[in-house]
Amino acid sequence: MSETRTTETTDIPETGGTSGTSGLLDSPSSLEEKAAGLDAADELAKHREKFVLDDTVYLDGNSLGALPAHVPARVADVVARQWGDLRIRSWGESGWWTAPERIGDRIAPIVGAGEGRIVVGDSTSVNVFKAVVAGTRLAGEGRDEILADATTFPTDGYIAESAARLTGHRITFLDPDEIPAAVSERTALALVNHVDYRSGRLRDLPGLTAALHAAGALAVWDLCHSAGALPVGLDEHGVDLAVGCTYKYLNGGPGSPAYLYVAERHQDRFDSPLPGWNSHADPFGMTPAYEAAEGAVRGRVGTPDILSMLALEAALDVWDGVRIEDVRAKSLALTDFFLECVRAYAPVGRVASATPEAHEERGSQVALRCAEAPAVMDELIRRGVVGDLRRPDVLRFGFTPLYVGFADVERAARVLGEVLRDIPAA
Amino acid sequence: MSETRTTETTDIPETGGTSGTSGLLDSPSSLEEKAAGLDAADELAKHREKFVLDDTVYLDGNSLGALPAHVPARVADVVARQWGDLRIRSWGESGWWTAPERIGDRIAPIVGAGEGRIVVGDSTSVNVFKAVVAGTRLAGEGRDEILADATTFPTDGYIAESAARLTGHRITFLDPDEIPAAVSERTALALVNHVDYRSGRLRDLPGLTAALHAAGALAVWDLCHSAGALPVGLDEHGVDLAVGCTYKYLNGGPGSPAYLYVAERHQDRFDSPLPGWNSHADPFGMTPAYEAAEGAVRGRVGTPDILSMLALEAALDVWDGVRIEDVRAKSLALTDFFLECVRAYAPVGRVASATPEAHEERGSQVALRCAEAPAVMDELIRRGVVGDLRRPDVLRFGFTPLYVGFADVERAARVLGEVLRDIPAA
Repeated sequence: MSETRTTETTDIPETGGTSGTSGLLDSPSSLEEKAAGLDAADELAKHREKFVLDDTVYLDGNSLGALPAHVPARVADVVARQWGDLRIRSWGESGWWTAPERIGDRIAPIVGAGEGRIVVGDSTSVNVFKAVVAGTRLAGEGRDEILADATTFPTDGYIAESAARLTGHRITFLDPDEIPAAVSERTALALVNHVDYRSGRLRDLPGLTAALHAAGALAVWDLCHSAGALPVGLDEHGVDLAVGCTYKYLNGGPGSPAYLYVAERHQDRFDSPLPGWNSHADPFGMTPAYEAAEGAVRGRVGTPDILSMLALEAALDVWDGVRIEDVRAKSLALTDFFLECVRAYAPVGRVASATPEAHEERGSQVALRCAEAPAVMDELIRRGVVGDLRRPDVLRFGFTPLYVGFADVERAARVLGEVLRDIPAA
Repeated sequence: MSETRTTETTDIPETGGTSGTSGLLDSPSSLEEKAAGLDAADELAKHREKFVLDDTVYLDGNSLGALPAHVPARVADVVARQWGDLRIRSWGESGWWTAPERIGDRIAPIVGAGEGRIVVGDSTSVNVFKAVVAGTRLAGEGRDEILADATTFPTDGYIAESAARLTGHRITFLDPDEIPAAVSERTALALVNHVDYRSGRLRDLPGLTAALHAAGALAVWDLCHSAGALPVGLDEHGVDLAVGCTYKYLNGGPGSPAYLYVAERHQDRFDSPLPGWNSHADPFGMTPAYEAAEGAVRGRVGTPDILSMLALEAALDVWDGVRIEDVRAKSLALTDFFLECVRAYAPVGRVASATPEAHEERGSQVALRCAEAPAVMDELIRRGVVGDLRRPDVLRFGFTPLYVGFADVERAARVLGEVLRDIPAA
């Protein structure tokens, strides 16, 4: 297995950012003023009021998105009226039955997919399984190898290995940078994370997809850490299959259902390893013989978890009128500014960024390596700055452009500097 | 494929029940009086007030259980406080992370399982996949055949076929009655429905499990239509693996997560085909190498759908202090009384029961074959008696002992008689 990118860090105080600001020269008070100016000019700032926030700085929306303020009432209606009063009539009258594809169509524009390509349901892990097994079937006989991202969130690797064991494919873990050299006529597909969950590194989705296609292989992308934070362009870049979760930048709620994208050109040959009755052409015919439905519905499995699913549907309302390109621009401005503030506030040599400086390689998070990371994150949270720890030594901060502002960023970096001064280097 | 049991019907007006009542001689008014007496003596009647019910007779709890009245407030707390206020802290502080096994332990006594055998999550279909693939691995090399219930709810068959395709097993569909003769040293496992979703026929779980074990094969049971309606005795009868849904007699809400049972003796060799990160021995170690957790947790896959899952957990509170044996006794009294009332009220020759008369072969539903079933069910629902239709000709009525009373049963049969008189035979 190749060395992962998370080991390549940038010692922040010694490195200039790409934001064009004169980070090292800014005084703390000027950074507060700068934040105020950036917030005042922020076209997306108005969306913040759509969320339930408190006086903490919440930089863990890449783990669990904040609660959209209108969701509780919608969930209450689903429980009390749709379930309690209408009961089974809600499968039709409340649109329960068609929720997986309807909500898929709500996610589609956020990830650059046309209608009818995405279906919501099951966990990300289960969708990885569907995508990898079905992907090997789409690739056809004679391609006996799966390439998998060695830097992936682990579940993708575990599931891909299980899929390979069942389909008889060889699986090779490698750094995604190595894919163009490694892909061959034996490669069925590569499973790659669009953004590295740990370092925040953004992979070159168009380039890697093209490299895979040039060798006749399929590109299967995991969008967990990119969907809702930056443009993905699934259709535009010819991605074959993709999966993603909905509880990070899509704010769907804890464990809200994941989704599966199947390119239109593959839909009629998509052959699911989990052909549950919800994917049947005539599910209420209750026929012993399986016949797959047309379109994205083919990716469904069993009865959808309606409460979680309709909370997600409600949460997606915050995207009405939001352009993902604007979200991306603010995301980069936030992470640029955070790196600038960390440079200004953090004692020299205590943290080093594992997140690429180059915009085209950066997701919507900043990962800082810090020898005292566990104690530092505990203290940060105690002081109202919520990020998370990725063992053993990564402080991870996610920036959700719809509800994180520049003043939050300045405060987070300032508190980090204070904590680092209060917790001496080991 | 063998002929299914649903084709064997009993023409109700010509057949005596086993309830000991003199059905044909009862007058309508005496049945109303009898219902009142049965309700007055019903020890479980007090539980009805725990549910949100209206003036309809709800006999579709075997499709979607009614809403327990305390659930909306619990869900509201999960959404507003646990998600909205505590956010990621809830994974620990609100017990989100351990919910799958904690809720499994709440279901366990209802199906006769000890602690640590059941884990909640994913759909029934996904759990069937886990159980069948893992079951073939437990059975070991040299057993190349899967037996599957030909009368099953279709998704089990579709998923078992998919599993067999991936594992290289032959699959044979047969009537469960044929299992003792069909099982051999080539049989890895049999997948059987405890109660037939259409006819309501209850299978001999102890006998079939013993027959399978005598040949060295595993018994995998689907409990969707039995759990919460009658004693299952998973541990007592040595069942190997089982799955079930939670939105029928367990009232967990629309699409609430299903569960997986793994017998204690198999847990250390349970080898899941969906080894997601939630089943890892050290999930937050984020290690590239998979290492399975101990115990039921090994059946977990991805991040649990918390809203649906905690609604289920709340719903299970209605079982506090309820003995499943008492539920079973009332269930049989309800279905006996329904058959008695149908005999009294339905015009001769219009309906025929597809549900066994013998208690030991009856679940908690009554299926009536009726040539005009679609029109009859539409009209029944219009007149406030909610059952469901199983195409082409089955009127299905489920009896949930915790909230269905004997007066409901009498009214349902009476209205059915009226509807049959108003809708002439074709």
